[in-house]
Amino acid sequence: MSKGEVVLLDCWASPFCMRAKIALEEKGVQHERREENLFGGKSELLLKSNPIHQQVPVLLHNGKPISESTIVVGYIDEVWSSSTPLLPTCPYERAQARFWADFIDKKVFEAGREILTSEGEAKEVAKKDFIEILKQLEGALGDKSFYGGDASGFVDIIAIGLTSWFVAYEKFGGFKVEDQCPKFSAWMKRCMQRETVAKVLPDPEKIYEFVITLRKMRGIE
Amino acid sequence: MSKGEVVLLDCWASPFCMRAKIALEEKGVQHERREENLFGGKSELLLKSNPIHQQVPVLLHNGKPISESTIVVGYIDEVWSSSTPLLPTCPYERAQARFWADFIDKKVFEAGREILTSEGEAKEVAKKDFIEILKQLEGALGDKSFYGGDASGFVDIIAIGLTSWFVAYEKFGGFKVEDQCPKFSAWMKRCMQRETVAKVLPDPEKIYEFVITLRKMRGIE
Repeated sequence: MSKGEVVLLDCWASPFCMRAKIALEEKGVQHERREENLFGGKSELLLKSNPIHQQVPVLLHNGKPISESTIVVGYIDEVWSSSTPLLPTCPYERAQARFWADFIDKKVFEAGREILTSEGEAKEVAKKDFIEILKQLEGALGDKSFYGGDASGFVDIIAIGLTSWFVAYEKFGGFKVEDQCPKFSAWMKRCMQRETVAKVLPDPEKIYEFVITLRKMRGIE
Repeated sequence: MSKGEVVLLDCWASPFCMRAKIALEEKGVQHERREENLFGGKSELLLKSNPIHQQVPVLLHNGKPISESTIVVGYIDEVWSSSTPLLPTCPYERAQARFWADFIDKKVFEAGREILTSEGEAKEVAKKDFIEILKQLEGALGDKSFYGGDASGFVDIIAIGLTSWFVAYEKFGGFKVEDQCPKFSAWMKRCMQRETVAKVLPDPEKIYEFVITLRKMRGIE
């Protein structure tokens, strides 16, 4: 439903931008996406809209900027509240959802980066840490279909974009998420069957190529 | 008002626990505090209630645990919603409050720790970084009395507990917050005039002594 102009300052490879895009798709919000040039400096609009962190995603709703992806998803949930609630209504369950969203925010991408940027013994440690984090997430999922229960919800949206980087972690780390965390892997597949997710997430092989480019640029290879 | 049993797993020196305590005071929630023994190992109840992070604060509401201080404050606001709202009602203003709470979470305590644990040139950098963070926070306050506007709110509660460590930062860093950030300093004083804050925050000199003990234990001194 229309509640005015919605513009997303975006970057195709950012798992954090994917969160905002999936949330907008889930809510059926018409929006314009403006791709930031990853290698050509940040746009004036981005610097003006998010002067503190200077990072995508930024959601501009009728010109007013909202930053930090988890906060953006919460905002979308509150503004377009009449369709597909993302957070549960019970305060205790909301707090649990926020807890796991926060856990994911603090752990997953950082642990993945360690796999991509370390070598030798340090890479083994990074891999072990990453798998341990996924096992904790698998534990939180339990026997549910989604973190949101029978339906995909807030935590599912926070987590799923990050999995588009997993092929890169697997190839650089020499392991398979499916072997280590079969239930988490099954959850990934369930999410990918959702149109709102499938149309947003890029091909993981494209992310892998992107990581190779990044590593070359940073002189790791 | 009573909504069942409320127990807080607490530690007197933790600025994160102070958030939960101030929020409970603001809402007038009767509660029991159980002090964790800082140097004697963590309680079974803490390990069971927060197995992922094993950190205070944990709010046990009718036996159900809520962890991570910012989430705890949000939970308290939602459950005891009829008195003194902490977050604004407008989704955009809520997102802004969450943004600054997140900024504070990510930056302030970590930057302060750097002052306490570094020496020489590194300490000068740490001090500069810390003051820069406070200046950003001062900018966010603008000419308002509180982050919540005319009344203390969510961001004020998230931030004020951390200031009980500022005397320690000042003494180890050789600077004065008041000289660098007079408006932020005036905000600190306004908060301390609130009974809900004054009765929760410990004497900063006691925190300073505690930091000296911690440094000795960790062999920094």
